[in-house]
Amino acid sequence: MTTETAVWGVGTSLFGKQPQLSAPELTWVAVLEAIDDAGLAGASAIDAVYAGTVFGDPGVAQRALQSIGVTSVPIITIENACASGTTAFHEARLAVESGRYERVLALGIETMTAVFDGAIAPIRSDAEGAQGFAMPSIYGMSATRYVHEFGVTSEQMALVSVKNHRHAVGNPRAQHSRTVTVEQVLASRMIADPLTLYQCCSIADAAAAAIIGPRRSPSHPRDVPIRSSALRSGKLWDQRSSKVWGWDIVAETAALAYEQAGIGPSDVDVFEVHDAFTIGEIVTTEALGLCELGGGGRLVESGHTSIGGPQPVNPSGGLLSRGHPLGATGLAQIAEIVWQLRGEAGARQVDDARVGVVETMGGGAAGVDGNGCVVAVLGRS
Amino acid sequence: MTTETAVWGVGTSLFGKQPQLSAPELTWVAVLEAIDDAGLAGASAIDAVYAGTVFGDPGVAQRALQSIGVTSVPIITIENACASGTTAFHEARLAVESGRYERVLALGIETMTAVFDGAIAPIRSDAEGAQGFAMPSIYGMSATRYVHEFGVTSEQMALVSVKNHRHAVGNPRAQHSRTVTVEQVLASRMIADPLTLYQCCSIADAAAAAIIGPRRSPSHPRDVPIRSSALRSGKLWDQRSSKVWGWDIVAETAALAYEQAGIGPSDVDVFEVHDAFTIGEIVTTEALGLCELGGGGRLVESGHTSIGGPQPVNPSGGLLSRGHPLGATGLAQIAEIVWQLRGEAGARQVDDARVGVVETMGGGAAGVDGNGCVVAVLGRS
Repeated sequence: MTTETAVWGVGTSLFGKQPQLSAPELTWVAVLEAIDDAGLAGASAIDAVYAGTVFGDPGVAQRALQSIGVTSVPIITIENACASGTTAFHEARLAVESGRYERVLALGIETMTAVFDGAIAPIRSDAEGAQGFAMPSIYGMSATRYVHEFGVTSEQMALVSVKNHRHAVGNPRAQHSRTVTVEQVLASRMIADPLTLYQCCSIADAAAAAIIGPRRSPSHPRDVPIRSSALRSGKLWDQRSSKVWGWDIVAETAALAYEQAGIGPSDVDVFEVHDAFTIGEIVTTEALGLCELGGGGRLVESGHTSIGGPQPVNPSGGLLSRGHPLGATGLAQIAEIVWQLRGEAGARQVDDARVGVVETMGGGAAGVDGNGCVVAVLGRS
Repeated sequence: MTTETAVWGVGTSLFGKQPQLSAPELTWVAVLEAIDDAGLAGASAIDAVYAGTVFGDPGVAQRALQSIGVTSVPIITIENACASGTTAFHEARLAVESGRYERVLALGIETMTAVFDGAIAPIRSDAEGAQGFAMPSIYGMSATRYVHEFGVTSEQMALVSVKNHRHAVGNPRAQHSRTVTVEQVLASRMIADPLTLYQCCSIADAAAAAIIGPRRSPSHPRDVPIRSSALRSGKLWDQRSSKVWGWDIVAETAALAYEQAGIGPSDVDVFEVHDAFTIGEIVTTEALGLCELGGGGRLVESGHTSIGGPQPVNPSGGLLSRGHPLGATGLAQIAEIVWQLRGEAGARQVDDARVGVVETMGGGAAGVDGNGCVVAVLGRS
C-alpha cells in the first residue's frame, strides 16, 4: 500500500550570473516561496529534506536551511551530476510514497559563476576532460555522429536554440531573455564543432525547491499530483556501437515512468527536458517518444514543440535560456511544469496543459550512457 | 506494512594512506567482497545503490561500479559530511524496508591522501576555517569547555587513544597498528590544545560496502538483522548555552534508534562510534547512555569500553586508529559490527556479542550541532 503523492508548492530564485548571492541566500528565496506556495505554516512544518547539488560545499544544505528554521529533521544531500535536482525530487517522492514523511522539501542548489570561468573546469580525476574532452566536446561528437546517421541539419539544431530563447522571453526568472535567429545562432562563436555558443547552455547561480506530500486534492486544487518518477543509471558503452548520443538511457527511463503513470507520450501536453546543448533536446524528444528515431530535427522544425504547437518542449526556455545551475535545474523543471499545469505560467502558458513530463540527464561521456537520468510525470489523471 | 531488513554481506578495502589506488580500485575490493559475503551470484543482482562520499568527484560511484557490472539500476550518491556512509546505509535500509528494492548496495568511498596534505583543507565558503577554526580547533574548544564543566583529565582523554590503538592491533585492515601509552599520547605534537596528534584521527583512502535486503533468517544464519536506524540533522546553537560539544544531537538520534529497536543502552554489547578526536568518544559514550553526562572520562578509565570490558567501544580501532576516510567510515563501522555479531572479528572479537550499535557524527561547528548524526542498531532480538 503506497501513498499517492503531489507537489504542494514550488519556488525558485532568479537564474543567472549572480555571484554576489551566497548559496544560503539563493536557497532562502526558493524555499520560502515554496513553503508559502504550499500553504505551510512555516519551515518547521517540513519533515525531511532531499537536496541536490554537484559542486556545493559539504553541508551546504544544512547551513542554508538552519537559519530559516529547518533543523533536526533528516537532511540528505544528493549528487547525480546534472540530474541531482530531479534525483532529490525522486527520492523525496519515494519517501512520501512509503509513508515515512508527510511534508518533504526537495531542493536544488548551485553557485557556479564565482567558481568557474565561463564553463565547468574538468574534475580532478578526468584525464580526458583535461585534454579538452569536456561536456561540449562530448555533445559535439554526438552531434557529428548524429548528423552523419540521420541527416539532421545545422539549421534544425539551431532552431532548438531559437525556440527556447523565444520561450524564455516569457520567463522573468530566466538567465537569457532575448530572441535569437537561426543566422545568429550559427554565426555565434564555435565551441565544439558543430555546436556554436548559442547552442550551449550557460553556467548559472540559483536554487529551486518543491514541497512534496500526500495527495490532498480535491480539497487543495492547486496540488499537482505526481503520477510517476523513474531513475536509471548509465550502461557501459559497446565500442562497436555508433550510438554515442545517450538515446537509450532516456528511452528506458521514460518507458518506466510512462508505464507507472499509465500513459504514453501522446498523452503529454508539455515537457521540460535536458537541452544542455541543442543536440540534446533533439535526441531527447526522440527518446521520449515524441517522434521516431532520427526525426528530432524535423520535429522542432515543424513547430510541434513550440508554445502554440501540440506538445511544447521547454516553455521555460530550458537549460539553454533559463541557464543551467546544475543541482537547481531539475527542481526548476519541476516548478515550471507545476506552474504550467496550474495555469500560472503567464506569458509562456501552454493552453490546456493537464499532463507534464520532466526529464533530466546527468553526466554523459562517450564511454557511458550518462551517470543517470530521471523522468517524472505530473498532472491529473 | 514494512519489510524487516538485514545486512546480507559486508566488505572493505584496506584503510590507510594508499594514494596509488584510485577510487574505483578501492571500491571494487569492498563491493566484490560484500557481494561474495552476501552470497549473491554477482554484481548484476544488485537492485540499487546508495553511495556516500564527501570529496568524491561527481559521478565517482557510477564510474567505479560500471566496470564491475552495476549499471542501469538507480545509483544515488549522498553527502552528509563524516556521516555520509551511514546516511547511505540509512537510506538503503529505508528503501528495502519500503519494499522498493530487494538487494541494495550501501557504499562509502573516499580518497584523501592524494588531495589533502595531512589534514582536510577548509572548504571554499568556510571563512572561519580559513582563519584556523577547522575541525581540530572545534573539537579542541569543545574539549576545553568540557574539561572546565566536568573535570575530565588529560589522562582520561588520552586513554581513549590508548584503548583504540590497542584494539586496532587486532584489525588487519586498520591504518595504525601499534600500541601507544598515555605518556606517548600526551607527548605527541600539539594539534589544537588540549588535543595532541594521537588524539586526532588521520585522513585515509578506503571504500566500504554492505548489501542490504529483506531479513532471510533463520535460513541464512549469517544475515545480521537491522533493528533500527535514525538520522537527525543539527540545530542552531543557543549562544547563551555552554553546551558546545554536540551531545544533544547524538542523544536525540540514539533515543530514536533505541526506541525503534525496543532496547536501551544497557542491552548493547558492542559499539562503533565517531571518535574523530578523543573528546568525541567521551562525549558520545555519554550521549549514547553508557554513563551519565560528564562521566565519559571515568568510563574509559574503568575499562568498561575496552575489549574484555562489559561494553567495548570501537573494537576496530575506531576512526583514531582504523583511519577516517570520510565517506567510507560509516560502512566500515557497519562492517565491524556485522563481523562482531557473527563472531568473525578474530583477535578483536567481543565475547558473546548479540546487539551492536553504530554512531556517526557528520560535521560540527561551534554554531551548530553538526550537519547530521546517524545511529543504527543491529543484531538479533
